[in-house]
Amino acid sequence: MLKPARGIALLTVLLLLGTWGPQAAAQHHHASSRVITFPDVPGYHTLKVDLHTHTVFSDGSVWPTIRVEEALRDGLDAIAMTDHLEYQPHAADIPHPDRNRSYEVALAAAEEHDLIVINGSEITRDMPPGHANAVFIQDANPLLQDDVMAVFREAERQGAFTFWNHPMWTAQNPTGITTLTDMHRQLIQEGLLDGIEVVNQHNYSAEALQVALDHDLTMLGTSDIHGLVDWEYEVPHGGHRPITLAFAAERTAESLKDALQAGRTAVWHDNLLIGREEHITPLIQASLTVQDAQYVGDSSVLEVAIANTSDAAFVLDRQQGPTFHARADVIEVAPNETTRIQLKPGERVRSTTLAFEVLNAVMAPETHPVVTFEIDVPDAETNDP
Amino acid sequence: MLKPARGIALLTVLLLLGTWGPQAAAQHHHASSRVITFPDVPGYHTLKVDLHTHTVFSDGSVWPTIRVEEALRDGLDAIAMTDHLEYQPHAADIPHPDRNRSYEVALAAAEEHDLIVINGSEITRDMPPGHANAVFIQDANPLLQDDVMAVFREAERQGAFTFWNHPMWTAQNPTGITTLTDMHRQLIQEGLLDGIEVVNQHNYSAEALQVALDHDLTMLGTSDIHGLVDWEYEVPHGGHRPITLAFAAERTAESLKDALQAGRTAVWHDNLLIGREEHITPLIQASLTVQDAQYVGDSSVLEVAIANTSDAAFVLDRQQGPTFHARADVIEVAPNETTRIQLKPGERVRSTTLAFEVLNAVMAPETHPVVTFEIDVPDAETNDP
Amino acid sequence: MLKPARGIALLTVLLLLGTWGPQAAAQHHHASSRVITFPDVPGYHTLKVDLHTHTVFSDGSVWPTIRVEEALRDGLDAIAMTDHLEYQPHAADIPHPDRNRSYEVALAAAEEHDLIVINGSEITRDMPPGHANAVFIQDANPLLQDDVMAVFREAERQGAFTFWNHPMWTAQNPTGITTLTDMHRQLIQEGLLDGIEVVNQHNYSAEALQVALDHDLTMLGTSDIHGLVDWEYEVPHGGHRPITLAFAAERTAESLKDALQAGRTAVWHDNLLIGREEHITPLIQASLTVQDAQYVGDSSVLEVAIANTSDAAFVLDRQQGPTFHARADVIEVAPNETTRIQLKPGERVRSTTLAFEVLNAVMAPETHPVVTFEIDVPDAETNDP
Amino acid sequence: MLKPARGIALLTVLLLLGTWGPQAAAQHHHASSRVITFPDVPGYHTLKVDLHTHTVFSDGSVWPTIRVEEALRDGLDAIAMTDHLEYQPHAADIPHPDRNRSYEVALAAAEEHDLIVINGSEITRDMPPGHANAVFIQDANPLLQDDVMAVFREAERQGAFTFWNHPMWTAQNPTGITTLTDMHRQLIQEGLLDGIEVVNQHNYSAEALQVALDHDLTMLGTSDIHGLVDWEYEVPHGGHRPITLAFAAERTAESLKDALQAGRTAVWHDNLLIGREEHITPLIQASLTVQDAQYVGDSSVLEVAIANTSDAAFVLDRQQGPTFHARADVIEVAPNETTRIQLKPGERVRSTTLAFEVLNAVMAPETHPVVTFEIDVPDAETNDP
Repeated sequence: MLKPARGIALLTVLLLLGTWGPQAAAQHHHASSRVITFPDVPGYHTLKVDLHTHTVFSDGSVWPTIRVEEALRDGLDAIAMTDHLEYQPHAADIPHPDRNRSYEVALAAAEEHDLIVINGSEITRDMPPGHANAVFIQDANPLLQDDVMAVFREAERQGAFTFWNHPMWTAQNPTGITTLTDMHRQLIQEGLLDGIEVVNQHNYSAEALQVALDHDLTMLGTSDIHGLVDWEYEVPHGGHRPITLAFAAERTAESLKDALQAGRTAVWHDNLLIGREEHITPLIQASLTVQDAQYVGDSSVLEVAIANTSDAAFVLDRQQGPTFHARADVIEVAPNETTRIQLKPGERVRSTTLAFEVLNAVMAPETHPVVTFEIDVPDAETNDP
Repeated sequence: MLKPARGIALLTVLLLLGTWGPQAAAQHHHASSRVITFPDVPGYHTLKVDLHTHTVFSDGSVWPTIRVEEALRDGLDAIAMTDHLEYQPHAADIPHPDRNRSYEVALAAAEEHDLIVINGSEITRDMPPGHANAVFIQDANPLLQDDVMAVFREAERQGAFTFWNHPMWTAQNPTGITTLTDMHRQLIQEGLLDGIEVVNQHNYSAEALQVALDHDLTMLGTSDIHGLVDWEYEVPHGGHRPITLAFAAERTAESLKDALQAGRTAVWHDNLLIGREEHITPLIQASLTVQDAQYVGDSSVLEVAIANTSDAAFVLDRQQGPTFHARADVIEVAPNETTRIQLKPGERVRSTTLAFEVLNAVMAPETHPVVTFEIDVPDAETNDP
Repeated sequence: MLKPARGIALLTVLLLLGTWGPQAAAQHHHASSRVITFPDVPGYHTLKVDLHTHTVFSDGSVWPTIRVEEALRDGLDAIAMTDHLEYQPHAADIPHPDRNRSYEVALAAAEEHDLIVINGSEITRDMPPGHANAVFIQDANPLLQDDVMAVFREAERQGAFTFWNHPMWTAQNPTGITTLTDMHRQLIQEGLLDGIEVVNQHNYSAEALQVALDHDLTMLGTSDIHGLVDWEYEVPHGGHRPITLAFAAERTAESLKDALQAGRTAVWHDNLLIGREEHITPLIQASLTVQDAQYVGDSSVLEVAIANTSDAAFVLDRQQGPTFHARADVIEVAPNETTRIQLKPGERVRSTTLAFEVLNAVMAPETHPVVTFEIDVPDAETNDP
Repeated sequence: MLKPARGIALLTVLLLLGTWGPQAAAQHHHASSRVITFPDVPGYHTLKVDLHTHTVFSDGSVWPTIRVEEALRDGLDAIAMTDHLEYQPHAADIPHPDRNRSYEVALAAAEEHDLIVINGSEITRDMPPGHANAVFIQDANPLLQDDVMAVFREAERQGAFTFWNHPMWTAQNPTGITTLTDMHRQLIQEGLLDGIEVVNQHNYSAEALQVALDHDLTMLGTSDIHGLVDWEYEVPHGGHRPITLAFAAERTAESLKDALQAGRTAVWHDNLLIGREEHITPLIQASLTVQDAQYVGDSSVLEVAIANTSDAAFVLDRQQGPTFHARADVIEVAPNETTRIQLKPGERVRSTTLAFEVLNAVMAPETHPVVTFEIDVPDAETNDP
């Protein structure tokens, strides 16, 4: 099979500029469906960000350029480079690195792309406090000091946004059940800890979600990627890395930081959306549009189209509205498609209301948001039998 | 591309025996995943049956042999041939047919296959009573008489099992909302109507389900196929026709009739299972097995495997048991696969209980069955940290 | 999974008009890639036709409406209804049929579609002469007579186009090697036999191709379908029925008949194109366009795009032109895609010539057509190193 | 969708041992069809090797562990680590590296796997001689010297196997047409250059193949991978990296080196096999087995099964033997499948011979090997008509 010969993806060219070797004239690029897709919400851009990634500059397996290309392929708006400050297993080959290097290399690779790269560091300690990320830092090197509280204060001094990593990690918490320690309470009290990962890599924690709600912490979901995103998250089989959706006034680093500090986030993990009611409900309402309502033939069966402009396969449980003509109360609305359903209001009404509990979204442990759709039928009367 | 040359499916050979023309020596057969799969339940075989099909002998588009081959490809145990008694749009070409002919032709085609073929007729009247099927009849011709009550009595005399077809059909019921008429009540009272289609073709009716419960009618789901099953139900894209699952003591026509008359059925429609609690709960419990429970490493996170031996993609909502290490409360268990989940009991317990509401199954309108799994961990102590 | 509810394909509606039963309000239609695609050639439309099909009116398994819908799904321009005249295994149910009925029923079904339906009959005799189709007949019934020569003369009288069916059929020819009998020679001599199937169902015959060339017979490829096209040709797995490509001045029945009588045809079977050089070479040249020639960077490697607007996966063996930068001499050009290749002319020439033997096409047994492409490089000089 | 939770691939565990961070308890692994498959040949194991790869230790983008995991996923027997000696764009971060480091790190990662890791270096010079790889070296550091001839002599002193890299690379050879320089001739004459890449990355060179034949150089195909194999070669879409097939007495590093020095190789690139006749013909014969010959029914049509145990989709052009019952002279035999074909010997012979030119294999520019199959029909007589 002869394959297309030219279509060199621009990003490939740029990322490989430093390479000395015969780069294929014959590269090729599949139009990719892996781009993660969510709509904007009223008043905000929905930024797709991964704030926890590793490279060879700590214990990751790739040069930072790969992190940039993965992010571009995933359609992310921003990534943070967060190599471990204290843990340096590659020190034999990369001795005493400037802790800003993974950021600098990634920043250069992203220069001609529309990707925001954020400087960060993973503060890597035993429990408590365990691991934490400081992102939006000015200089990682001053964070490299013994007293962990001093590290958080230095991060704060630099204007960083900080969050608790993988509180459900069994290596530091054998039950897997997220529990605040006194040190965490102190960090929160002093304003030194802004957020918490409710999803890290493959794990979601209902208890971490409750901690976020109880202590007003920003909810985050991160890949914590060390190897390859494609392998870890089985991207060719339809998987995706966990990400944070940040609702930002503009598509800039500053605006993203504002959103994080204001707690305006949701988390996208497998087919699960996680977030506070005030953030997640508008996102789902923006993702789903009920349209094209009309009666079928001479009947009083009303057909509507539900357009889903997001990657979520919504699982909806009818709470209010007529019964369906083809389905029971729980329906699935496929991602990035329009799904048609038929309602049985019993007569040709001019309007009706549909309300659904969204089962693949949580706004608190075991608590799902409800979305409501007012449906008008413009010509309900004209076809009256 | 050269394709396999031999592999003539036996069924193809047999069905085409009447053909005079060069049947391909070079036929081929893809091992098919379209076979519909559900496990047996304690005490009963789970028979997969379609009791509503049409052929050229009324207003269908195929010779009965195609119905047999479709059924074999779908892995059905039984089909009923139920051409319209009164409606004969092909009369110009097939004049005054013996109303048993579609049955006789299908029976001959199925002779060397493991498929039960049932004689039936669709009684095709205006509402009331609308359309009804009589299956397990001895002779269709005597059913061809004017007085509709007399038709039902003749069916009863022959020992037939009878059911109300598509009570949600808007051509006979513009609201689509199933409602009993006086004639239906009379038929039920006289023991002349045994069941009701809660699913016909693409439509499910919650109201028909309620009627079945209120009046002790057997629940049925049927394809009502006129054209091709592959096209109507998009089988190559993973679709399937609606069928009735009958819980029968043996895999015989008699035993199937017993199951129908005793109301031991469930309905499989899209990804929805419908049935009385006493039938549907054992089916789901038989479909799902929780096994291989063990603690992960030194942690108290407990991993279990859920084996699903059915075609249903179960949507399960946790009602009882520890929180999960990677998921929220609503999970999906893929069909015909084993899914692993991790639980957080908080300590290394020796047993725990998981209970799920099964959201893709209904035992009454908006009412889902609950399944429970007792989990023992054989070596909970050995790995204790 | 909830599926789209409306999108009733118009053709479905029309074909099922005669049906009395609840046709799904919730039908759906996948945009289909099964439409067979070949470009027009200079001076002619390329009509896609299947001139050999069966229905319940002889030994087929479907009502003629299914043949119409299959043809519409396959994107055919024309089908002929060619039920056996003499062989009537369904006579018990369809007694003494008017031999034009499968045509009449199909014609009515196709009425509002853009499909040409042709009246035909299969003359069904032992060898010699075996089976033959007469298409474009006025009335099939007068063909039903004992003397086979008289049948052909009646067909001729009606202006029919006639062809020898499956001369490679081992039931009538145990060697499978097509051989003319005296009767065939006489039929040809008298102008009573116009064509020959070089492909029938799954079989191609090199010897039949030679007979067509030696005796100036029109080449045909037909499905001879009795069951379902989707099953017999594994359409969901990418297969297609064999068809005849007729090069017609207009897209009308008359023009199609002219093309057949003039021998302007090719045959499409699996991935093989068969035809006389004067017909098949223009078709391949029309299918393939070499464009966008430019030198790669500062090199003298010349990249061109080969656009293939047909369903054929062309297997091309370079006969003339520079060697390739990535491939050996035999390349594959995928169907309905643009393939890029790079040539090494050795210096920045302003034009070059590429000639290929087309290995998946035959114009005589073991003889492949050659196609030639003149390539101009508009800006060969501008990038000169 | 809930995914399997345990199945941690052993290789993943081992490769990530150095990582400090919450590695997913919930990893998973798809049984992969990406493993490259070719059968052994009489007297030799067919080893699948890639002798040209890069890492962060020169201008590659990954830590050497990724190269090991890619090789394990591809089912390779051996890889060589061949970072550039002279070209060190990462020197700011990885200063003055020991030139054996990528080998040492990969070797440790492969320790518990069945993968041979070979020490190598890419000698990176302007043309002449361009780039060359020395593999099976003892110590890369002494190769780092100015005089290029001295480098080759040091490689020779260490017992290395050396080959010319990408002679078709337009950055060093604007025509892309491989041409020997005097320096190459001298290197060959002095026994300092043992092989030549006829395939590098996406490019194949017919002229390099001719050079290999003319100067008795070992033929090689390599990935020259800098980024990710999965992206560069579109592995999820069925692509694969170019590799060398080495025919070795044993599956050991020594035996592999013997095979390379003896020139016992072939190259696998896209769907193309390249090699000397004496190596490639046995490989194709070992890949294809003709079996199960029997006559079809009462006919003299002979059906055989061609089992293909390799990844090559063979394109075969019949040179000798009966014509086919369904195909023209050029057929395709799908990879890792059994394809059935039917032959028309004209009578029930007890044996026949089939010979094919193999169009997707070259043993010299535009020269394809021929494979022959003797077919015996055990029961030719028993079914005699």
